[in-house]
Amino acid sequence: MAMFIWAEGTTTGQQEEVAARLGELPGIIPQIREYSVGADAGINPSSYDFVLVADFADRDAYLAYRDHPAHREVVDRYVTPIAAARAAIQYEL
Amino acid sequence: MAMFIWAEGTTTGQQEEVAARLGELPGIIPQIREYSVGADAGINPSSYDFVLVADFADRDAYLAYRDHPAHREVVDRYVTPIAAARAAIQYEL
Repeated sequence: MAMFIWAEGTTTGQQEEVAARLGELPGIIPQIREYSVGADAGINPSSYDFVLVADFADRDAYLAYRDHPAHREVVDRYVTPIAAARAAIQYEL
Repeated sequence: MAMFIWAEGTTTGQQEEVAARLGELPGIIPQIREYSVGADAGINPSSYDFVLVADFADRDAYLAYRDHPAHREVVDRYVTPIAAARAAIQYEL
């Protein structure tokens, strides 16, 4: 699970691009069991802007996703350039 | 959903106390539909330490939880004193 604060000046188009590119990953990386994204509802001013929740069978499946070239490309090309802050955690259900 | 980094020197006992106190809230606050906590699996060094995932029927149910005295007490007495960083987001499924 990862949350992001987008940098000042990030456009709606850039945010939609991130969601769209991430949304393609479950079709590319078979280790992804569940994958969903969400935008902040605007209730609390200190909230992060965007969240990604992903589920994997185990640690190895997560690592395959984390290091998959298709995932790295989305991170490097679309996420990192507009991310002002990132908070992430991996935990067992 | 909220993630925390615990301050240096936070004990295992303090972390278990947070999880235990939060775990009592679903029995006290009827607006909580689902509630789970998790500790970081230690895969990535930059990860947050602790995550809380909660589900509510709607915005009003979330607000009732956010502002409930039992929740505020756990936050003020057990979470805030050991939280070095917090990242949170509210979003619609």
